[in-house]
Formats: sequence, structure tokens, C-alpha cells
Amino acid sequence: MSINQLPKLLPGTVPAPRNHWYVAAFAHEVTETPMARFLLGERVLLYRTEAGAPIALADYCAHRAMPLSKGKRVGGDRIQCPYHGIEFGPDGHCRHIPSQKGTPQQMRVHAYPLVQRWNWLWIWMGDPDLADEALIPNHADFSFEGNDFWKVALWRMDFACNFQLIHENVLDVSHVSFLHEGLADSGSLVKTPAKTVVEGNVITMTRRWEDLLTDSYAKTFGIADGTRVIRTNIAKTYVPSLNVAMNIFEFPDDPERSPAMRSAPMAFTPETDQSCHYFMAVGANYGDEPVGAVLEAQGQALWNLILDDKDAAESIQEAYNMLGAKTPDVSVRADEGAVRFRRMLAEQVAREFSQSQFSD
Amino acid sequence: MSINQLPKLLPGTVPAPRNHWYVAAFAHEVTETPMARFLLGERVLLYRTEAGAPIALADYCAHRAMPLSKGKRVGGDRIQCPYHGIEFGPDGHCRHIPSQKGTPQQMRVHAYPLVQRWNWLWIWMGDPDLADEALIPNHADFSFEGNDFWKVALWRMDFACNFQLIHENVLDVSHVSFLHEGLADSGSLVKTPAKTVVEGNVITMTRRWEDLLTDSYAKTFGIADGTRVIRTNIAKTYVPSLNVAMNIFEFPDDPERSPAMRSAPMAFTPETDQSCHYFMAVGANYGDEPVGAVLEAQGQALWNLILDDKDAAESIQEAYNMLGAKTPDVSVRADEGAVRFRRMLAEQVAREFSQSQFSD
Amino acid sequence: MSINQLPKLLPGTVPAPRNHWYVAAFAHEVTETPMARFLLGERVLLYRTEAGAPIALADYCAHRAMPLSKGKRVGGDRIQCPYHGIEFGPDGHCRHIPSQKGTPQQMRVHAYPLVQRWNWLWIWMGDPDLADEALIPNHADFSFEGNDFWKVALWRMDFACNFQLIHENVLDVSHVSFLHEGLADSGSLVKTPAKTVVEGNVITMTRRWEDLLTDSYAKTFGIADGTRVIRTNIAKTYVPSLNVAMNIFEFPDDPERSPAMRSAPMAFTPETDQSCHYFMAVGANYGDEPVGAVLEAQGQALWNLILDDKDAAESIQEAYNMLGAKTPDVSVRADEGAVRFRRMLAEQVAREFSQSQFSD
Repeated sequence: MSINQLPKLLPGTVPAPRNHWYVAAFAHEVTETPMARFLLGERVLLYRTEAGAPIALADYCAHRAMPLSKGKRVGGDRIQCPYHGIEFGPDGHCRHIPSQKGTPQQMRVHAYPLVQRWNWLWIWMGDPDLADEALIPNHADFSFEGNDFWKVALWRMDFACNFQLIHENVLDVSHVSFLHEGLADSGSLVKTPAKTVVEGNVITMTRRWEDLLTDSYAKTFGIADGTRVIRTNIAKTYVPSLNVAMNIFEFPDDPERSPAMRSAPMAFTPETDQSCHYFMAVGANYGDEPVGAVLEAQGQALWNLILDDKDAAESIQEAYNMLGAKTPDVSVRADEGAVRFRRMLAEQVAREFSQSQFSD
Repeated sequence: MSINQLPKLLPGTVPAPRNHWYVAAFAHEVTETPMARFLLGERVLLYRTEAGAPIALADYCAHRAMPLSKGKRVGGDRIQCPYHGIEFGPDGHCRHIPSQKGTPQQMRVHAYPLVQRWNWLWIWMGDPDLADEALIPNHADFSFEGNDFWKVALWRMDFACNFQLIHENVLDVSHVSFLHEGLADSGSLVKTPAKTVVEGNVITMTRRWEDLLTDSYAKTFGIADGTRVIRTNIAKTYVPSLNVAMNIFEFPDDPERSPAMRSAPMAFTPETDQSCHYFMAVGANYGDEPVGAVLEAQGQALWNLILDDKDAAESIQEAYNMLGAKTPDVSVRADEGAVRFRRMLAEQVAREFSQSQFSD
Repeated sequence: MSINQLPKLLPGTVPAPRNHWYVAAFAHEVTETPMARFLLGERVLLYRTEAGAPIALADYCAHRAMPLSKGKRVGGDRIQCPYHGIEFGPDGHCRHIPSQKGTPQQMRVHAYPLVQRWNWLWIWMGDPDLADEALIPNHADFSFEGNDFWKVALWRMDFACNFQLIHENVLDVSHVSFLHEGLADSGSLVKTPAKTVVEGNVITMTRRWEDLLTDSYAKTFGIADGTRVIRTNIAKTYVPSLNVAMNIFEFPDDPERSPAMRSAPMAFTPETDQSCHYFMAVGANYGDEPVGAVLEAQGQALWNLILDDKDAAESIQEAYNMLGAKTPDVSVRADEGAVRFRRMLAEQVAREFSQSQFSD
């Protein structure tokens, strides 16, 4: 059966699965001052207790739905509603109502599991009983844990499109030669077929060039033109929340030289059905300054790349909004990764739905 | 049965009742030049005849729905449509069609009953046959008619929320200590239980302090710190359209001294389901200047208070828009007035609905 | 049966008929650089091939719905998608996919028939098999083809209303005396009944004054006050896409003098259900400069007139959006042309619908 004969799974036609970990924020964004962020269509309050624990609560006061994020932290770990002064603890239960003595049991807000790993805070938007921290992507797999020598830059953008459109952007590298013409590695990625492996919820696409003379692109890795290298490009997608792009250059003619490595994890978290957060990190093991070398050489180019991706993904979202189920969607061979992603996402949602039917 | 076991009557879940008087405008706003204002979801044309009578008509020309408020008054009391020149009288009937001789009977627009009382124009948005002027709140009840010595300031704001959210704001004074922390009478209102009386469509909540030494708050009434007073705080709600906050300070140690009184009627008129007009007056019997004393001492503080109320009510409207029937709404003891208001409003709407079923 | 007893056909209650020619653009607007324009609710890509042929394609790439108009022309006549580089020919068929060899049959976009006539590009938004060029309004009928001596000015505006509201504006000249009071020919048009003739889809309304002494209005035609003329005013409506207003002054006292003629075709093309494009041309056979004479004498006045029409039509669209089927719509004698237009439009849509039921 051809790839185009399957039932269509257009971006946004299945909801985001909830029983998974998503990045809610960079660790440094969340402080004692409450902040609000929309995640999977819900308004979430994020703050830290006096002891530094990151907390995520539903951002609507149980009394009259006032956003708690407009309130303040009191008593070390509680959030006080700014409207009538009702207080809630980190577990979401009410601790104090100014105008009376008792606190009724139903006066509570949802508390979301929230875990800090590396520079990121991972949130579980589904059933808290299923929140298993072992399911959080292992940062060591892309060298971002236990490697203090890595230089890392972080930044965040909001996209006005369903998060799947960004996943699909990253999963089909054939766009690099056109959308990023003149800005990125044009040509070699498109022409080299990828080896694809699926394990659990992780899709890994690997491209390897055994005997390559580097061109101008490799300069951004600090490698002189015409150096003989073995290059490996790995794209790992942890469905539904994370993509990682890794590039490794090895030097067969210089066995003493360490491989040059760059790793860029990109976490895509739905904000609503039509918008998402894009949390990006870029780390490298080369260059002089802690962050400067990466940013100075590559930052502006990457930023421009992502602005192009943003425009493309948002344009397609507009098309979906106009056309709905009539949106054209003929797949080509280069869409293999994107189509696998769509199917896996649909399976996750279907599984979640059937679970919810039998619980309670 | 606990207050939280009743069926939920969230703001905006019942429409505004129509067979009641609402404030459409301050008297000074309406002149011979036509103006438009949305009231209970309808676009209403307001103007005065040459003789000074205030008139309210549906603002859509019966011919092609052009807003008549873009036209002009002609012939002393008619409104001329700016598009094709068709003219309507104060009763809404067509008086002239330029391109022909007759005026068909169906060429007419709705004429709303409109009555001027004190500084306000009261409109009846429902069945004109039921418009009984005796139902207009009696301004003498809050000292605003027949008392020329009162100094009064007026102002108007538009809120992006259902009008019930402003009523509920005023009805639950426990918000004063938190939302207006440091700006208003913090503490005493919340700690003192109110005596509540319901008569017809009027909810009256009274608080009385028999033997009080005044604090800094009383200074705004021109009363020195530490003066012994009997203070009375009265909140009257005329469901569905008016709230009045009255403060009276009596001086038991100085029988010759007149009580210091301040009265603040606040009329809330739905503009749409998600927005309302806020017409406010503040009058006092103390201070030197006709208006200045009130405004200079209290104006800026009141304005700031109301901006906080606006932000709270609009934030909650956003929550309703996001969450609908899932909006949290657990009531506490301090919500007694607000919950009575909700029930009375729902009863008014239900009564109106059953009336309309049996009429015609 | 009175004009008001017919079932209501409010503007926007029937869709725009598709099997007709509409103006998509002025000829000079479309070049080798792709541009997008919404027409009848569809996003259309317009460009010219290297040979100069104007082309119209659906503006969504068949692969992932990226707007092709953000791409570029390649190879003389193809459009290249900016995202993944897929190429389409002027017939809408895919010619090249960078990441593979074949081009699947279903990888195609709709190609709209597009024909250049005079200064306009006419598009057929319906079934291409029915696109008969003989159905394009004949520009010679209003002197705009084969008459090099005519001076012509062109301009375009977008209106935030259904295109019918502009047709109805033009069809009921009784608005001139009120909406354009002091700016246009006030009085004579309204007072003189029109002779109406319907042939096929063309409604022609003619007014003729046999023995007229000109007033200040005729000055804009270069005619001195008090000149004896025979004046003819013709309004031709080609349902659904074009209106033409023609004015002819003949000089019975001066048989050698050529008639002064002005012709203003106005093409109204739906953009969406609630917006339309207004393509206007004004041509005259008098005045010195190729364009200047027309524009200098009449341009500013016409522009002001149209801004008034825009405000009226958009105000009425807002009324429809508020009131829907409850929008008032009582017709008068002057609405004869507008009501004929509505009926003919509804018949075109009905015919199209019944055709589509029996095809395929």
C-alpha cells in the first residue's frame, strides 16, 4: 500500500497525547515569582518553593477562577490568590480562606507532576498516577548530562502552528536545500538516504559519510576546508515531545584529534491546538568560550534558519485553517520519518483513549 | 444543602433579563447629535428631540440595515438615514421615503422606552408594554434626588466581561483586603459579618460598628484620627442593574455635628454577553467644593481600585472563555450576597421566559 | 405580490456563483514574480510565464500545503515550492521532486482558466470544462476596447463586505443625494425613473433627459453651465461580476460637437464571504491629457464618493454579522434593480447547484 493510500493524519487532527513528559520551561525561567504558561491548552502556574522545588498548578483559583499566577508566594511554599486571598499548597489543596475557618475539601486545584532534568523542567499533563520519571528522555543520550565541558546556548520561541508541523519540519531534511538555501548544509543531506530505526517511541534516522572532504559548512565546526572526515548525522525523535539533531565529525587522518560534536535538542510543546513552544539548546565540544564560540559562529545563522521554519510552518497552519480536511497532503519518499511520526502519535492518542475508557 | 451543592449558575450562563430598567447613558451624554451604544447585545441609537426628549431607537434602518446613528436629526424630531435618506420619527415609524410617496407600514424600527431620572437615562430593553416607570430604582433611597447640596462626580468605563462579574465583585467585600491591599479599608469590612435583607429585587447588606475609633481610612471622609463614631456601611443591590455602596459616620460625642455620608451608585449594563458598561457616581455631603473635594481626596484611589476590579473581572471572563462549564466555582461563606444575586437573576430570567411563552 | 413578500435573499445568504468570469487582477499587477490573491474564498497564485502568459494556480503545494506564491518561477514557466523544492507547471501538474525521480499523478494543483482582456485578467473559479471565453463581458460595449483615444485611470480597493453590498450600492442610485450629498449629481438621478431591460445576465437601466440645461455637475465633463444637452445615463450590470456606469452628453444646438462620454466599469470580485475586491476604471473621451484630465477633475471626488460607499457597505455587513436572518430588509421602489440582481444571482447559484448534482 502506497504511503498516500493510508487514511490521512494531518497535523492537528489528533489531539496531543497527554500521558507523556513535555518541556514546560527552561529551569532558569521558573522562580519564586509565579508565572503562567499555556501548555496543551491549559493555563499552568509555575513557581518554586522557598526550598527551590519547581511546582506546577492549574492556574485558575478553585473559588472564582482568578489566575493564581497574578498572586504571590506566601509562607514559603503557598500561592495566595490575588482576588480574595485564598491560599493553596504545592499539592493544590487549599490551606487558608480569609473569611472563614474551614477549608472545604473541594477547594483545590490540579497539581501537575513537574521534574527538573538538566536545564529543562518536564511536565506531565495527563493522569498523575501514570507519571513515571523513567519515561523522561535520557539527556546523556545526546551528551547533555554529566558533560560539564560542553558549551551550551539556549533559546525559546513561540510558533503560531500545531506542534506537529515543527516536528515534520525537522523530520524532512529535504527542506534544507530550499527553505534555507545558502544558509545551511545544502545538498548532502538531501542526497544521502537515511537509515531509520524505531525503538519504543524513539525514531532514529542516521546518515553517515565514510570518506568525505569537508566543504565550507564544516568550517562552522572549526574544521578546515578539504579535511578528510567521517561524518555522522543523527536525528532522534522522542515522540511526542523532543527532537535531537546531532553532528559528529571524526578525523581518520589524525587519530589523536577528538571528534567535533554538536548536539541540538529541540523540545516542542503544544501551547494550544494552533500554537506551540519551541525550546532549543545547542551544545558543542569545540570552540574557546563557554558559550560564545557556538553562538558567534552559528547563532545568527541558526536564528535565521528557524525564522524560515517558523514562517513555513505558520503558513501551513493557515492553510489548514482555511482548508480543513481538504488540505492537500501528498507524501513523497523523503516524508518517511514524518509519516512514521504521525502514525506513532496517532497510536499514542488511541492507546490513551482506550485506557481512559476502562479506568475509573 | 451546602452552597456548593446547588446547580451552578456561572456568570454568563443565563442571559441578562430584559424586562428591567438599565442605565443606557448619563443624561449629559445624549444630545441632538445621534450616538450609538450597544446595550444587551443590541445596537441602540440615542438622541434628543428639539424639545429635549431623550429617544432610543434600534440603530438599524428598516430598509437596508444602515446604522441610523451615522445620520442626522431633521425636522426637529426625526432621524434621517445617511444612506438613502429615509426618515423615522421618535416612535420608530417611517415618516418619509425620498424615492416614493407612501411609507409602508413595515418600514419601522423598534422604539425603546427611555426615561431620564437624576443624571441617568434608564432604558427598557424588553417588551415595551411592561415598561413601568415605578420599577426604576428610587434615587432618593441613596440620597441622589432632591438633595442639591450633595457634591457628585460621574464617570464611565467599559469592562470586557459579563456584567455579573462586576456585580459579584462588589457583592463580595472580602476582596478589598487583597485586591486593593493598601488602597482601601482593609480588614474591618472582611471581619465584620453583614446583616442581609432581601425585599423584592433588592438585596441589602448592612454592617454597623457602634463604638469605633476612626483610623486613617476615615480621613478621606474629613474625620480626624481617633474620633469616636458610629459607622454604617450599606450595600444595596437592585437586581439586575444597580449597586449602591453607602457609608455613614455619626458622631455620638458631638451631637451637633451632621453625619458624614458618602454614596456611590454603580450601574452595570450589559453591552454584550462578554462586556458591560460601568456607570459610576460618587456623592458626598462633606468637603468644600462642588465636586473637587470628593475627587481630590478620593478620586485617584477609587480609579485605581476600579482598575484592579477591571483586571480581576476580565481575567475571570477569560477563564470562562477557556473553560466554559468546567470553570472552577467553589463558593465560600463570603459569597452569600453573590450567590443570592445569581439565584435572583436566574429567577428573573426564568420568569421572563415563562411569560413570553404565554403571551402573543 | 409586493416586493417585500418574496423570500428574503439577503446579501451573503447565497454563495457567489462559480461558473462565471470574475476579474482577478489588473493586467499590470501580474508579473513573473508570483503573487497571491484570495478569490471566492480560495487562495490563488498568479504569475506570468517567460512568454508572458498569465497563469492562475491553487496556491497550496500538493505536498504539504505551503503557499507556492512564496516560491519563485524557475525554468521559464514552472513554480518552485519554497519549502521542499517541488515544481509545478502552468497546467498544475508536478514536473520535479528533488528527493526522488518520479512524480506521482496525484501531485498536482488546480489550474484556473485565466484570460487577459483589455486591462483586466478574468478568472473562472468553477468547473474549467465550462469556461467559455465568449461569456466574458464585451469591453467594446462600454467603449473600452479598440478605442485608443480614451483616457483611462485605474484603481483598486478592498472592501470588508460581501460583494453583493457593493452591487446593491451601485444599483440603487437614490443613495447619491444622501450619502454623497454635495459631492455628486444630486437630485436628477433620483427623480428620474429608469427604463430597465434584462437580457441574459445583463440588467440595463437607462435614464434619458431630452432637453436639459446643464448645471455645475456637467462642468466635470468640460461642458459650460447652461448648455442645452441630451443626457443619457446607463447603468449596466453583468451579473455577477461587473457594473458599468456610462454618461453621454449630446449637443443638439451644435451638431459638429462630438458627444462627451464617460464610462466607469467597476468589477466586484468576492475575496471571502465577508470581503471583496473593487477594481475600477474610469475612461473619458474629453480632456487634454491621457489620464490627467480625468483624474484632476474627477479623481478626488470619485475617491471620496467611494470611501463613503465603502463605509456604508461595511456598516451594513457588520449589521448582518450581528443580526443574521433578523437583519431588517424592507424594499422600496428604488430597489428594483437591486432586487432583480439578487434574484438573478440566486438563480445562477441554483442552476449551478443542480448542474453539479447531475455531473460526475
